[in-house]
This record gives sequence, C-alpha cells and structure tokens, in this order.
Amino acid sequence: MTLQNDPDRLLPADPGTRDVARALYRSVEALPIISPHGHVDPTILVEDTPFANATELFLRHDHYVTRLLHAAGFSLADVGVPDLAGGGSVAAPRDAWRRFCEHWHLYAGTASGYWLSSILGEQFGVTEQPDGANADRLFDTIQDALQAPAFRPRALFDRFRIEVLATTDDPMDDLAAHAVLAADPTFSGRVLPTFRPDAYLDPAKAGWAERVASLAAWNGTPEGSYRGYLEALAGRRRHFIEHGAVSSDHGVPQPLTLELEETDAAALFDRALSGTADAADLERFAAHMLFESARMSVEDGLVMTVHPGVHRNHHAPTLARFGPDTGHDLPVRTDYVRPLRPLLERFGSAPGFNLVLFSVDETSYSREIAPLAGFYPSVFIGAPWWFLDAPDAVLRFRSAVTETAGFSRGSGFIDDTRAFLSIPARHDMSRRLDASFLARLVREGRIDEATAERIILDLVVDQPRRVFKL
Amino acid sequence: MTLQNDPDRLLPADPGTRDVARALYRSVEALPIISPHGHVDPTILVEDTPFANATELFLRHDHYVTRLLHAAGFSLADVGVPDLAGGGSVAAPRDAWRRFCEHWHLYAGTASGYWLSSILGEQFGVTEQPDGANADRLFDTIQDALQAPAFRPRALFDRFRIEVLATTDDPMDDLAAHAVLAADPTFSGRVLPTFRPDAYLDPAKAGWAERVASLAAWNGTPEGSYRGYLEALAGRRRHFIEHGAVSSDHGVPQPLTLELEETDAAALFDRALSGTADAADLERFAAHMLFESARMSVEDGLVMTVHPGVHRNHHAPTLARFGPDTGHDLPVRTDYVRPLRPLLERFGSAPGFNLVLFSVDETSYSREIAPLAGFYPSVFIGAPWWFLDAPDAVLRFRSAVTETAGFSRGSGFIDDTRAFLSIPARHDMSRRLDASFLARLVREGRIDEATAERIILDLVVDQPRRVFKL
Amino acid sequence: MTLQNDPDRLLPADPGTRDVARALYRSVEALPIISPHGHVDPTILVEDTPFANATELFLRHDHYVTRLLHAAGFSLADVGVPDLAGGGSVAAPRDAWRRFCEHWHLYAGTASGYWLSSILGEQFGVTEQPDGANADRLFDTIQDALQAPAFRPRALFDRFRIEVLATTDDPMDDLAAHAVLAADPTFSGRVLPTFRPDAYLDPAKAGWAERVASLAAWNGTPEGSYRGYLEALAGRRRHFIEHGAVSSDHGVPQPLTLELEETDAAALFDRALSGTADAADLERFAAHMLFESARMSVEDGLVMTVHPGVHRNHHAPTLARFGPDTGHDLPVRTDYVRPLRPLLERFGSAPGFNLVLFSVDETSYSREIAPLAGFYPSVFIGAPWWFLDAPDAVLRFRSAVTETAGFSRGSGFIDDTRAFLSIPARHDMSRRLDASFLARLVREGRIDEATAERIILDLVVDQPRRVFKL
Repeated sequence: MTLQNDPDRLLPADPGTRDVARALYRSVEALPIISPHGHVDPTILVEDTPFANATELFLRHDHYVTRLLHAAGFSLADVGVPDLAGGGSVAAPRDAWRRFCEHWHLYAGTASGYWLSSILGEQFGVTEQPDGANADRLFDTIQDALQAPAFRPRALFDRFRIEVLATTDDPMDDLAAHAVLAADPTFSGRVLPTFRPDAYLDPAKAGWAERVASLAAWNGTPEGSYRGYLEALAGRRRHFIEHGAVSSDHGVPQPLTLELEETDAAALFDRALSGTADAADLERFAAHMLFESARMSVEDGLVMTVHPGVHRNHHAPTLARFGPDTGHDLPVRTDYVRPLRPLLERFGSAPGFNLVLFSVDETSYSREIAPLAGFYPSVFIGAPWWFLDAPDAVLRFRSAVTETAGFSRGSGFIDDTRAFLSIPARHDMSRRLDASFLARLVREGRIDEATAERIILDLVVDQPRRVFKL
Repeated sequence: MTLQNDPDRLLPADPGTRDVARALYRSVEALPIISPHGHVDPTILVEDTPFANATELFLRHDHYVTRLLHAAGFSLADVGVPDLAGGGSVAAPRDAWRRFCEHWHLYAGTASGYWLSSILGEQFGVTEQPDGANADRLFDTIQDALQAPAFRPRALFDRFRIEVLATTDDPMDDLAAHAVLAADPTFSGRVLPTFRPDAYLDPAKAGWAERVASLAAWNGTPEGSYRGYLEALAGRRRHFIEHGAVSSDHGVPQPLTLELEETDAAALFDRALSGTADAADLERFAAHMLFESARMSVEDGLVMTVHPGVHRNHHAPTLARFGPDTGHDLPVRTDYVRPLRPLLERFGSAPGFNLVLFSVDETSYSREIAPLAGFYPSVFIGAPWWFLDAPDAVLRFRSAVTETAGFSRGSGFIDDTRAFLSIPARHDMSRRLDASFLARLVREGRIDEATAERIILDLVVDQPRRVFKL
Repeated sequence: MTLQNDPDRLLPADPGTRDVARALYRSVEALPIISPHGHVDPTILVEDTPFANATELFLRHDHYVTRLLHAAGFSLADVGVPDLAGGGSVAAPRDAWRRFCEHWHLYAGTASGYWLSSILGEQFGVTEQPDGANADRLFDTIQDALQAPAFRPRALFDRFRIEVLATTDDPMDDLAAHAVLAADPTFSGRVLPTFRPDAYLDPAKAGWAERVASLAAWNGTPEGSYRGYLEALAGRRRHFIEHGAVSSDHGVPQPLTLELEETDAAALFDRALSGTADAADLERFAAHMLFESARMSVEDGLVMTVHPGVHRNHHAPTLARFGPDTGHDLPVRTDYVRPLRPLLERFGSAPGFNLVLFSVDETSYSREIAPLAGFYPSVFIGAPWWFLDAPDAVLRFRSAVTETAGFSRGSGFIDDTRAFLSIPARHDMSRRLDASFLARLVREGRIDEATAERIILDLVVDQPRRVFKL
C-alpha cells in the first residue's frame, strides 16, 4: 500500500477553511527550527558518525513506538530493547525492524504513525507502507541512505534548519560535548544544555544521598551542609549557564511547592540524609526545593520548566529488566493552582522570571494553566506534551487555552524528543495545526487573516525565542 | 411533525468528508451484531412471548428515559415504574405512554431520543414525532405490531443479525435459561452468561454475609472459611464457563486493587463477617478481591471487565420507593493508573489475560486509559459507557484515545443495554460514528481510505471477537 | 487595521451548516435580553449619569481585560486600577487606555477581544483596530459618544432591550436603588436584587463575626443566638423578595453540604463566634449553612444559584494592594455528585425548588452536572461561567451536557458581567453559538429544523423566565 504524505495533511476538511490554513502554513513552513527543550544526545553531533540502522533510529529508543508493540504482545527484547538485567537475547536490528513493519497497522491514527510516515516519506523517499514483505528492502534502503554524507547528524542539523537545539543534562555533567560544539569553527549550530536536577532535589529518588555527596565533593563543602548543598546547586547552574544553558527542567510527580525557613529545611535535609525522614518529610523537602529552584531562577535568569504529573515506571518487572523510559510512565491527575501558590505568591511577578508549565492532564489547560498564565507575568503555557503532542490533542489544547489567555502566553512548540530525525516532522506538524486552528478562527470571523499571519509567525519563531530568552 | 431518520444521519456535515464516511458506513452497515456485554433478560428468548406494550418496551425499564421525565417533574410511578415500597398506584401503560409522548421534546438532542427515533421509525414504521395527539394511536400501532410473529423476541434476534448476546448474571444463578437456549435445536443464537460478583466480593454491600453463606453452602465448606470462599467463587466461575461465559464483570465504586497475604485477607474476611470491620477494612478487602478476581481470570481465562466510578442510588427516597436502577446512579471522578498498579504489576503481562476498562469520567480516556492500554498487553479500552454512549461523546472518546493507542486497543462496541429493541439502533449508531471519525482522518490526510476500510471492519466484528475470545 | 464584525461571526464554517445557523440566529437576534444574574451596579441606572470615559467603561473594572495586561508585565496601577493600600500613583484614564490600545493584539482569539470588538464596532462605530497611533482618537470618540443622551445608562437599557436585569447584593443592603427604580414611573425596566450571603454564612471569611453581629442587631436578637441568626437571614431574604429578588447566590469554595442537628449547628456557631473553631469546624458549619440555604429556598421560593470552585485572591500581594476581583481568582477542580448529596436527598425533589449549578471545571459538565440535572427536578445546568463563557468553551459545554440532559435542563444564558455595555454583545454571542450548535445537529440529522427553531426560542427567552421564575 502506498505511503501517503498529502501536502495538505492535517489541514481542515472544509474547503474554505483549508484554503486559509494552507496560506498560513506556507508562510511559516520554511522557517528555522527552534527547539528549546528536548532529549537528543549531543555526542551524536560531536562525533558526527552515521546512524547505525533503522531500528537504532526509529525503534529502540522511541518508547512511543515500542510500547504499542509491547501492548501487541511482544517482549521489549523482541523489538530491540536491551535486556539490562536478565542478559536475555535481544532481537537483531533487522529482525526487530521486520516485526515493526509487520505491525505498521498498529500505528494508524497515532502521533507516532504520523511522524514515522513523514520521516520515511520525506527523509528517505519511501513510497510504500511498511509491511512484512518490504521490511528487509526498507531496512536496506534506510541503511544505504544513512551511509551518505547528507545523512550525517551535522548535515541533517543544517538541512533541518535547526537554529537552536537544547539537550537535557545531569547537573554534574561536565558538558564537554557542548563545549566541543561551541568551540568548533566548522559547526555553527547552537546546542545548549538544560539543567535537570530532579535526582538531586527529591530525596525520595534512588541515589539521592550519593548525588548530594557528589555535589558536596565538587563544592568542597561537607556532605551534611544544607547551605553547601544550595551553593553547589547554584554553582552547577552557573556552570550550565557558562555553557549556554537557558533553562532548568523539573520533572516532579506533582507541582508541590513550599517555603521553609532555612533551619527547618536544613533539619529535613539532615533527616533525609540520615534515612530518618518519613514520606511526608521527603515530600515537603522536595516541595521546598522546587520553591528554592524558582528563587535561583529569579537570581540567575534560567527559565524554569516544570513537567509534572507522570507516574514513572509503573510496571516494576519491566523497569527491573529494561530500565527506565521504556513505555510505562503514565499520566495522573495534576493540579497547579493550589500547589504552586507558595511559589507564585513569592516569585510570580518577579522581573525576568519565566516559568513554563507543562501538563499530561489536559483538563488542567482550561481550568488552571491558562488562567494562571493570563495573570502571572512569569507563567507560560507549555506546549502539549507527551501523549498530548498529537494532532487532535493539540487542537483541543489551543481551544482550551486561547479564549482565556490569547496567543501570547504560550511557550512556543516544544518537540521534547530523543529522536533526532523526527524533529522536522514534529515542528512541521505543529505549524500545520497552528495554521488549522487560526484558519478556523478566521473563517468564524473571530480574527482577520492579517492578524492570523502575524500570530503564526510569532508562535513559530518569536515566542520560543522570547520565552526561552534565546 | 415528521419523524425523520435521515439515511446520512450522524455523518459529518462537510460534503467531502460525508462522502467518505458514507462509503465506510455502507461497508459495515449490514454486518452481524456482536454484543459481548449487556443486560437483556435471557428468559425473553426462552419464552419467546410477545412484548407487552410500548411502555413495557420503551419506558418502564429504561432509566435513561424515565429519568428525564422525573426531572421534568413526574413521579416515577406516573411513568409506569412500580412503587415497590409504598404500594402506591402506578400509571397504566397507556397513560404512562401518553405522558411520554407529550414530553417527546425533552429528548431532542439526547442519545435516548436518537435511539427511540431509530426504533420507532425503522422497527415500527412510525413517521410522525410522538405527541399528545398521536400518543394513543402510536400505542395501538406498537401493540398491534408486537402481536405479529415477526416481533417475537427470537424473530427479532434473527432479524437483528445478532451473532452473540451476553447477559449479566448473579454468580449463584443456575443459568437454566442459558442451558435451555443452548440445548434448543430451533434456536441457533449464542446467548452467553456473564459472571457479575460485586455483591459477593464487596463486604460493604447489603446482604454480603448472606451471599457468602450461599457460596459456602453450595461449596460444602464452612461459612467462615476464606479458602472455601475463594474455592466457591472459582467453582461458580467454572459453572459459568461451562454455560458459555466469556467474561466476568466488576462494577466497583473505584478500581482499587490490593494484594494481601492470605492470612491478612482471611483476617479481614473474618472481621467483615463478624461485623467488626471498619470502613477502611471493607475497602481493603474489596480491593483485594478485585485483585483476586484478576488472578482467577488469569487462571480460567474469563475476560475481566471493570465498570467503575458510579455513585449508586444517590437519592435514598427514590431507592426506598422504586428500588435500584431508577435513574439516580451518577458518575464521579475516577482514577486508574495508581489504583490498578498492584493488579497490573502482577498480571498486566500475563498471557491470555484481558482486562477491559470502562469509564464514566471521560477525562480518564486520554490521561489514563489509553496510555495504560498502549503499554499493557492485557488492557483494552472499554467503549464509551452509560452517559458517554452518545454521538458527540463517542467522537470525543475516539479523539481522546486514538492518537495514543491507535485503533487496536479498543473493546469493540458494547451496547450494555436492557432494551432489547434498541440493540440494532445502538450498534448502527456506533458504526456511523466510527465511519465519521475515520472519514475525518482520511480527509485530513492522516490515514488512507483503504486503511480506514480495514479498520472499520476490524472495529465492528474482529475486535469484539478477539477481545472477548468469541 | 480594520476592525471587523462579520455579520456571520461565530457561525460554523461549513456553508450548509452556516445557512441553517444563520436562519436560527436571525429568528432570535432581536429578542429581549433577560439577565437573571450579573454584577452591574444599580446606582448607574438610578443616577443615569454618563459613563466617564473609555478606561472607566472597558478597562478598570474588567479584570478579564486588566489581567492580560498584568500578565504582559504591567502593574495594575499602570492600567488604571487604584492602588488601595500603597496609595501609589495610578495611570490617568487616557494613559491607561493608550496602554491597552498598544496591546490590543493580546486579546486576539479571547472572549474579551470578541466582546470588545463587538462593542467598539456596534455601539461606537469604530472601524479600526485599537493601536498606539489611534488610541487618543478612539478615547475622544468614545468620550464624545458618552456625552450624548443616547449613551446614558437608561437609554442604553432601552436600546439593549433589557427585560430583566438582576444585580448581586449584600444581605444587609437596604436596596434603596432598587426601590427607587421600581417606584420611578419614567423607568419601566425590571432591576432585581440578588441575595448573596457568603460573607454571612462562611465563618472562615474575614469579617464574619461582624456580619453576624449586624444581622443580630437588625433582628433584635442576641449576637450569640443561632436561632436568631437563622431568623435574621430569613428576614433579610424576605426583604430582598419584597424588592423583587428571585434568587440567592452562593459563591462557595466547594459545594459541600451537610445536615446538622440544630444543637450541633448552634454549638459550631458558638465556637466560630468565640474563635475556638478549627478549620474542619468552619468548613462543616459553612456546609451546613449551604444546606440551610436550600431549606430557606424551599420555604421562600428564591432560586438558589451556586458558583463554586474558585480559589479567590491567589496572589496575596495583589490583594493587599488592589483589593479583590483583580484578576487572580483561579478555578480549581470541583465535584458535585458527592458533596451535594445531603442537600439533594432532602430537597432534590421539593416542589418549586430550583438549584442552578455553575462550574469553572468543565470536566464536571458531562460527568456530574448534566447527570444530576437529568434526574433531579430541582437541578438546572448553569450556563458556562467565567473563563468558560467563550465561543469554543460554550460549544464544548453544549456538546457535554445535551446528550445526557437535552435542552430543557439549562439555566438559559447568564452574562454575569459588571460591564454594562457588554451585555448585548454577550447575549448576542450566546445566541450565535446556540444557533451554531443546533445547526450542526440539524445537518447531522439529529434534530429537524422546526425543532431547532423551537429550542432556540426556548433557550433565549422561555428558559431563563422559567428557571428564574420571572
């Protein structure tokens, strides 16, 4: 069966609305990509070695893709995910790819299916839908393409017109890859680190005490010193800023915040380190550290992004065998208005403070996030994230937030991807959907076409630059 | 006023999309009906006696219909519901029907209005909207039709092309009706019981201790034996399986699950029987028994369906006078990810285990149910249920789940009805809506038409067969 | 840039559906306005003095408008809101207006932007979008218009065809303004007070004890008498009824209700007055008083409206400086089914009792409010409120409630506005959206056009008259 990539895809069916949407989309189609939050590994750009094969590229690292094969009854090892614990056998890349192609139908109507179709068609010139019969041929086609200089990571970076690409990094990362790229006169792209301190801030996380110790060692302060701990965090943030970081990212279970007196915080820190803290203590300390992170952002200017509401590693047997990020992180109900109040009372109007709130609970968009962003100058509405980064979900999001907060309070599109090759397809999808949403408002007489043109330009390039201080 | 049943009803307004939708609908319109969960009384097929009259058929047993008349100010007795407690007078069928016809306008835009229009028009050839003037005539028209052999339950079963019809039954039911039908060489339909054990598993339910006693008596074990209780439940499940059952159904307040050691469970069982358990004990025991039900499903292969999140019998005075299922069961917020974790950690990947999650809180579709079903091979997304089994709600459901989980993780359509005559109208509605949703994706360039044809065929017949092991 | 007010604005883009919608809209476009709940100050009609200027009219009192300027980085004082506490300088009206015009683009796509466009275009004949260049000219144009007799409040009241306008008033208000208007032979409009007793019923509110004292003084009973307190509330309700009131309004944090024995309620009342009540006591007493308010409604016939789920005054520094109602009241999750059960068990079927449930948590519409209103004769679905009173949100609302509860269980449109000049634009918006929703159902073959015409007429005039007993 033919693999279609309709030039008008995702545009509204109504012919009059589609015409308006197409014109809006064309006006931003070719603009550079600004990607202020994502999970691409910077070493692929440092080393600039070819990607290995189709499975490495599309399958093994993309838990959106492997999870549906898992749901269809395959072990993750069958689709190329290494068995970390058991040391069991893992499917060879070509076998994993064949399995995927045989189950291409599982992806019909999904966001992953949409991206994969775009990438296969537009990057690799594939014109047939993957299936069991063509799997080997497609594997070879992709393999061949990947050997060409045009498919080396740096060449793709240029071809994709990426202006800025942010990575996500451990606070103790030396950021050597970023330094190499910045110093390389043959590479002109901007690749920025992002400070992601959850494992250092939440004492309920495994390995927290060891991480606190590493901070103390780096800072030359005693492990048990709460003040030294804060200094070290601030110091590592400076290190990130010196390497171009513009934001810190916080993946908290719920966006709880709490302002504690220093002595109370220090006492909780002691109890957490000594293992005598109870669950409520741990939660209070983590909430306080989210508050402290906002204080540091106000001081050092890093944009603060919060990705709450995910129950990580739901299926312990899969975690034990395959590690984290293997498809069983699941959304849960999330509130923002009450939990963020301590932080916003204190820093909500602080000059230069930018706080971007993401959600996987779409009920929060109209009820809490848009109303917050429509009052607090610091608060911006994070683009639809994770399972919500999909065509219908994005249109629901726009509908949910715009009437309350307009178009000026968004983060700009965030691809949040580990899959380097999916970046242009994701940004292109976002541009098509923004064009579709705006075209509907035009046709319903709610904005005029000139205004829609101004807005889509702002959404695509100016808004992410402004919100992320690029 | 004319009663319209537009042949294109429920198809999208945009002409291009409607053309695609119409073709998809036509391709499945005449396929057999598979109904793996519902509440039809099997004795109507055993006895095959004519339905009594229009009130008996459309009004008295259908709390979707009577509730809107109640909201309009009528007592349930005024619309034909027997006054169990007070023994007050109940409207004669013809009077109740007249009242309903006079208030036909209340149903405009509702799911009930849609079904009733379809049934009146397509089954009874009615061409005018019910009103006070034609009420008596319609009552007679329907009465006359019901006397005809073509309107006897078995004739309708054939005319409706019902391939499988599941009933919902008490665990101690002898299933004699099912046995008679299975043994009857003149009846070729498949009518299957469903094991519905809530009243035996949740010690907070009135009469639980008596039901435990009846299990013990049947099993020949002491009433106070927890192990005997488990054995008896497993035994009754076997009895159901021998009579064709393919699923057990669980109507729990919230989908809480808990794994207890046998001694702890037995201790709670004792306390519950002796009346010394507190509310937390009762909840823990019920959560444990939902977990145990999954274990039994893994062992005996019954598909497990869960219908949580309903506050039953909200209005105690109505319960006292008219009994349960009289229109005041009301949805409440429901979570799935956290409460089901114990069950899914243990059985989420168990071979052959199928767990179908229904919801009356539609926020759970995109946030929890689709993400769960997109990872766990056991989890399937239950079709929109109760108040959500309506045109717009079904399209919202498809939009909420498809981008995350695709089309392969659904249950297939479930009519869940007590109203035998509404079965074809309900399945037809679902087919029209699936066609509409798919046609939009086709027109937005997200799937091609051949794929849409394959999907709708799968949704209508293959998916329910697969998920319910038919 | 041109300020457009498309005559077909808000009607659906699909041409066939738009034709149906236009006809429906035309059929109700010119009908009188019934406004049974809002916040217009009645003294503007008593005094009938011209409005001061554009800032006074559109900006300073409208926290929907000022909040987006605040989010854009302005102090509220910069946009004309008086600095109550600090006594800091406040922008002159013309300067505030200029700031607003320079940021007109912030409102594109918002409900406020829609209303402001309608008002500027239709009331003031403005044909260009506000901007920095035309700000002064527009200020003058509006100023000039406001001096004309046709723009005096009473003239506008007639021009807007307002049949009924309800205000919202403190229980101890003498209602002199209402009395003056009622007695004035030159004013024929109906301006009704609304009893809003939150500050007298919820002991957690600042000043509660003083308000209880004022009730006692008025009633001539001891301050500590719970029975005297109830008598006084009933007495003030009678005072309101004598001045034309048809409803009492309850802005509670959550719709908790509780029936207490009189002795228990009196004991809580004592503890609350003496300052010895804890937070749980205060919440229980407030829940009991919501229950008592329903009892009083059953007795005296006032319609009971409930506006729950708002976290008031989220940003304490803004409250301290600018007072309440300054843009930082924020929605939170709200439940109805369980919290309202005590009230509904007791009064849900009481003859003549009307309870209108509003929500700022739109998830409650399909899950709880429509199901409640589809059973209890007393319960009506409040029109979309606050952030949800916007085009897309209204269509989502109709979609969420109609399939369960039909069209008969709504409150009719409620403008809930302080902005007198926005009243016609808001009602017009509602009529356009009702027409759009109904037109879609017509085109999808779900209702016929004659039924749609009947329904829209009912929604616009008969329903609010019926529900609010006008």
